[in-house]
Amino acid sequence: MPKQPDPARRSERSRQAILDAARELVSEVGFAKLSIEAIAARAGVGKQTIYRWWRSKGAVVFDAFLALSEGGEGMALPDTGDIEADLRLVMRATVAEFADPAFEAPIRALNMEIINDPDLAAQYREKLAGPVDEAKKARLRSAQRAGQIAADADLDLALELLYAPLYQRWLLRTGPLTPEYADALVDLTLKALRPPV
Amino acid sequence: MPKQPDPARRSERSRQAILDAARELVSEVGFAKLSIEAIAARAGVGKQTIYRWWRSKGAVVFDAFLALSEGGEGMALPDTGDIEADLRLVMRATVAEFADPAFEAPIRALNMEIINDPDLAAQYREKLAGPVDEAKKARLRSAQRAGQIAADADLDLALELLYAPLYQRWLLRTGPLTPEYADALVDLTLKALRPPV
Repeated sequence: MPKQPDPARRSERSRQAILDAARELVSEVGFAKLSIEAIAARAGVGKQTIYRWWRSKGAVVFDAFLALSEGGEGMALPDTGDIEADLRLVMRATVAEFADPAFEAPIRALNMEIINDPDLAAQYREKLAGPVDEAKKARLRSAQRAGQIAADADLDLALELLYAPLYQRWLLRTGPLTPEYADALVDLTLKALRPPV
Repeated sequence: MPKQPDPARRSERSRQAILDAARELVSEVGFAKLSIEAIAARAGVGKQTIYRWWRSKGAVVFDAFLALSEGGEGMALPDTGDIEADLRLVMRATVAEFADPAFEAPIRALNMEIINDPDLAAQYREKLAGPVDEAKKARLRSAQRAGQIAADADLDLALELLYAPLYQRWLLRTGPLTPEYADALVDLTLKALRPPV
């Protein structure tokens, strides 16, 4: 019935324009200088439209990132059969991402929101971190089947060993983020998870 | 010369009163509801006196905690000769501290400040985290001499393995903080650091 205006479709267009504007602006001016006014102006909507759907600029930026990674459901880690080589590849890429100044402002802003807001943290875990963690655990499970990791290893704890040191080092700026650091984390984690001989 | 007023001494008294007030109030009302006005009123000084020395309430609270732990220079970890037992004791206590609701608001507030302000983070490392880390590393060095930890282990990385998972789990509220969790972190870290047979 194309004669009628379609409020749902118009609404979805506005929502998309707001998310695009938020993503562009956070990259251009950084999170601290980002304002709801600027997002509204760039998206061609009123401020009240934004506040109808989101309660803070942090929440808008969060959804903007979320929209980016949608469709990442089918994500999988490389599986060449060599868990050490595969994890080194993944961890070197992750460390490089954290060390990239372009990611610094938005990722730190996102983390502030998550650390301060338990509801947002739960959403983040469900929609973003959770599916990614599942993909990582699938790779570790394959290594368990190959006898490269202890069969009774707690895989949630394994992910914490591998990623939490990097996260803390980046968050608190306590040390260099280098390929050697990525390799060291992989080596120590695999040693900790090694099956009994 | 007690006849003269002593501005340095009066100044030190005000500083101490402000820090005491900040520490009391953050425990009573939490960091979010804490105001510079309330600290000034409780300490019996003007707001401008606080702003002369500190640029934000976060900075005052930071110094208040710092003052608490001064004299912690001589701190040492237990050393019974059994690194596993000693680390379990220390990690169980640390996990319990993080799980204590009384610590939640001020420690989270302190972390927000540190994560957002690289200068404060550097101060925190130098005055608080640094000396504590040195004490922990001294205990690990003693374990290295006893052949319980690989002689070439990177002790900064060892501390990250042991503490970063706990820090991340607390910060992002991603899992329970239990004695079993403390034990698991000790077990995995010691396995990762084990000397070659």
